[in-house]
Amino acid sequence: MQIFHNAKLYPTADPASRQSAIAIENGRVVALGSDPDVLNLARPGCQIVNLAKKTILPGLTDSHIHLSLYAQSLAKVNCEVASRQACLDLIAQKAHDLKPGEWILGHGWNQNVWPEGFGTAADLDAVAPNHPVYLTDKAIHSAWANTTAIRLAGITSQTPDPSGGIIQRAENGEPKGIFFESAMLMIERAIPAFSAEALAGLLDQAQQTLWPMGITAAHDFDDLLCFAALQLLHLNGQLKLRVTKGIPEDALNTAIDMRLQTGFGHGMLRVGSLKLFADGALGPHTAAMLEPYSDDPGNTGVLLGDSQHFYPIFEKAVKNHISIAVHAIGDRANREILDSYARLRDYEAQNHLPRRAHRIEHVQTIQPQDQVRLQALGITASMQPLHATSDMFTADRYWGSRAANAYVFKNLLDLGAQLIFGSDAPVETPNPFVGLHAAVTRRRADGNPGSQGWHPSQRLTVAQALHAYTSAPAQVYGRQTEQGSLLPGCFADLILLDQDPFEMQPDDLHFLKPSGTMVEGEWVWQK
Amino acid sequence: MQIFHNAKLYPTADPASRQSAIAIENGRVVALGSDPDVLNLARPGCQIVNLAKKTILPGLTDSHIHLSLYAQSLAKVNCEVASRQACLDLIAQKAHDLKPGEWILGHGWNQNVWPEGFGTAADLDAVAPNHPVYLTDKAIHSAWANTTAIRLAGITSQTPDPSGGIIQRAENGEPKGIFFESAMLMIERAIPAFSAEALAGLLDQAQQTLWPMGITAAHDFDDLLCFAALQLLHLNGQLKLRVTKGIPEDALNTAIDMRLQTGFGHGMLRVGSLKLFADGALGPHTAAMLEPYSDDPGNTGVLLGDSQHFYPIFEKAVKNHISIAVHAIGDRANREILDSYARLRDYEAQNHLPRRAHRIEHVQTIQPQDQVRLQALGITASMQPLHATSDMFTADRYWGSRAANAYVFKNLLDLGAQLIFGSDAPVETPNPFVGLHAAVTRRRADGNPGSQGWHPSQRLTVAQALHAYTSAPAQVYGRQTEQGSLLPGCFADLILLDQDPFEMQPDDLHFLKPSGTMVEGEWVWQK
Repeated sequence: MQIFHNAKLYPTADPASRQSAIAIENGRVVALGSDPDVLNLARPGCQIVNLAKKTILPGLTDSHIHLSLYAQSLAKVNCEVASRQACLDLIAQKAHDLKPGEWILGHGWNQNVWPEGFGTAADLDAVAPNHPVYLTDKAIHSAWANTTAIRLAGITSQTPDPSGGIIQRAENGEPKGIFFESAMLMIERAIPAFSAEALAGLLDQAQQTLWPMGITAAHDFDDLLCFAALQLLHLNGQLKLRVTKGIPEDALNTAIDMRLQTGFGHGMLRVGSLKLFADGALGPHTAAMLEPYSDDPGNTGVLLGDSQHFYPIFEKAVKNHISIAVHAIGDRANREILDSYARLRDYEAQNHLPRRAHRIEHVQTIQPQDQVRLQALGITASMQPLHATSDMFTADRYWGSRAANAYVFKNLLDLGAQLIFGSDAPVETPNPFVGLHAAVTRRRADGNPGSQGWHPSQRLTVAQALHAYTSAPAQVYGRQTEQGSLLPGCFADLILLDQDPFEMQPDDLHFLKPSGTMVEGEWVWQK
Repeated sequence: MQIFHNAKLYPTADPASRQSAIAIENGRVVALGSDPDVLNLARPGCQIVNLAKKTILPGLTDSHIHLSLYAQSLAKVNCEVASRQACLDLIAQKAHDLKPGEWILGHGWNQNVWPEGFGTAADLDAVAPNHPVYLTDKAIHSAWANTTAIRLAGITSQTPDPSGGIIQRAENGEPKGIFFESAMLMIERAIPAFSAEALAGLLDQAQQTLWPMGITAAHDFDDLLCFAALQLLHLNGQLKLRVTKGIPEDALNTAIDMRLQTGFGHGMLRVGSLKLFADGALGPHTAAMLEPYSDDPGNTGVLLGDSQHFYPIFEKAVKNHISIAVHAIGDRANREILDSYARLRDYEAQNHLPRRAHRIEHVQTIQPQDQVRLQALGITASMQPLHATSDMFTADRYWGSRAANAYVFKNLLDLGAQLIFGSDAPVETPNPFVGLHAAVTRRRADGNPGSQGWHPSQRLTVAQALHAYTSAPAQVYGRQTEQGSLLPGCFADLILLDQDPFEMQPDDLHFLKPSGTMVEGEWVWQK
């Protein structure tokens, strides 16, 4: 048994739940209470730690992450450096670390800020003659490759430019090393897929970056290779992140054939929801809108399917005990999906099926009457606070006054809807305190857009935002009796903080970092 | 906490492991020892039970069962009664219990012992006019159906007899109600498949019949519908049997596409081994033999595939982290499978894959050099003691002196092979004490074949046989730290016995029945 006392201990995101001591045994919380009450349980051999008023919170859940892509992004060389030479130095170092023949991948360079401008294949050949090298620029519109990579991709002076892409060439037609737009794919196709074993190693590194941020659980929406890798990591006793693994759209029939149901699995890895896509995104004007984009009058975005399209898929999933999560950004996409969910709720009731916690991912803009419907239908809003502050100026430009219906965290909570928070990493940082700051202040780290934040009526309290990172995501999959809080019986998944988020300046939340993270009673990370 | 003391407590199948007291908390064993040692751990609220020298053993594992078929067999009317009228009375009762339109299924009648001989459809119509009825005879060579069933199957006076089957008919050609051999299938095809929900209900009944026999875990080799039903039963909090669910041969590609690996799951339900078939069975002379059957000189049985056939399937499975179990009855089938396993062990070593505990199911007859190979390759022998005593006279007749290589439990143990025991229910009773009796005595309940039993050199001690029902099956899937024994940290899955199997007359083992069965600290059954 371990006892932590003299703590500011919040077993849930409700500050009124505060206690001062907690006892942990066999990886679970066995008691909470005042210092005398809990210390009284101590038996010989019990480890007793005085936390000197430090804060304990439940470990946080990232309710929308792409673990595999995030893990792969960590393995890339960070090319966002001041000069081409600095980048080449990093590649030289990586070539030294990797076995000959292994691909060196990188991301983030920008020839506009480099005094030397674009690099060439020969530059990379000089520092990595024995490795294929492929480095994408910061905007991912071009990539820089070396000769080994170009040769592996089968590209020669005779290779024509692909449709929608350009190969930068020397006068003799030889590729120089820079590939624009769709020409990038010609190299990417030559990069071997990870094995499940290799990906397991990357996922281990990924969890080691997530723990220091306070994350102990995640709802993953990556592919099934990630599922294989997570199983291997668990088999090796290394998985210490509670992952709910979504089912990609193209795997629905396979999951049904295998008779695999949402919820099957163990404490560290469970099958999650089927992931579908209803539309695109704000940035490229592909989110499906009821009315045209304010800056593009003829364009209402791209609807990938209407309610007629989705309903049969929904019915098939729930009939086979699989719950649903649909990516919907625009107000039209959200409406179509709610139309399908309305029919689905009738179907579930008529067939005596459990009313599952189906989800909409992002819910970025949603009309007021659909906000009411989302709550009434019991649909979970899975949102990313950081998207609000990253996208706010774009939203104002593209959606105009409709931005009042965008990232409406507070409206949805006031209506009584279930709200869960995540990051969409690697699109944004998975740091949940950065997300917490965005949800509470509706401002960026630099203070923009002013003291009240963007659409300040949508600001949440720290308690409301933390709930969406803790108990709420656990409730979605019916796991609230064992995770998402520190109530007795739950896994001892917790974080230690030097500051109390309930008592600090909201702007400082952005910089809050745990000093320790525990999963199932074990410190997986300590400062 | 619960403490049981003053017990003959065997935490493992080794009688030298005996203790007198056990403490259980949160479903797991927390301490073992002498009465004073364990009683000393008692805290307020602890439940203390003096067992007055009763025996406690770990719960037993059935390492080869068809849970779905067994559950379905329980729902059938037992037609093994003295007269046709008695059978009809049972059908009338069942018709009363079931909703109109539901199928009444039964098994076990024998017109030769019935004074009234064969029944007719009209007999059944009189007692069950509103239900389709289908009853198979004891030998499963004919079936008796009523008019509703015949109509649902679309069989009329115009329907020709199928190849290999006969429809018993009146003079006008109308089916009379009895269907022989392949004609049975014409009705069986009309019986609707169970829904996963309905099968879950039957599986609940099945576990309730297994607990009183002392079974707390099972390795199942039924279809994937059974997997779906087990997940539903667990979702409802009702699954209290630790099931390792095999993957049927035709689901291998699906499992691979889904990236599902052996071992994934939770304490009550895990993915098991791929199940393949190498040959047929002893009874119908289809077990694949190296030399012809003694009573049928031209016949060596039916080999469903040689080592060339199986090896690529094996490699595909292990590459995807799926372990293997192959049905092999005859000595030829066992040899071919061992040839494949030998290549597979090389493949695993070359590719740095874990050396998994692959299995052969039944291993009914195996040549001495292959017994040695089985052990050397680390292949688990999954055997059914009751098959030995059920089949012994047939084995003598069909295999002659080769019966010395049949059901060689002791040889395999002496060689150091891993031996696990099961029932193959519903082919045999799942009662593990009947199996234990067969393994220890090599005799039937009636004492046949004499005081020393059949091939008495293959008799096991109680400890050896119990090991094959407890720790050994847990080891196969690497679960020995949490099941198969009552060592501290293991689930408190145990049985209570009024008699001590280590101290009783071997012949009485056949009739031993637990007086209580506990799963994860909860009495799931008590006399």
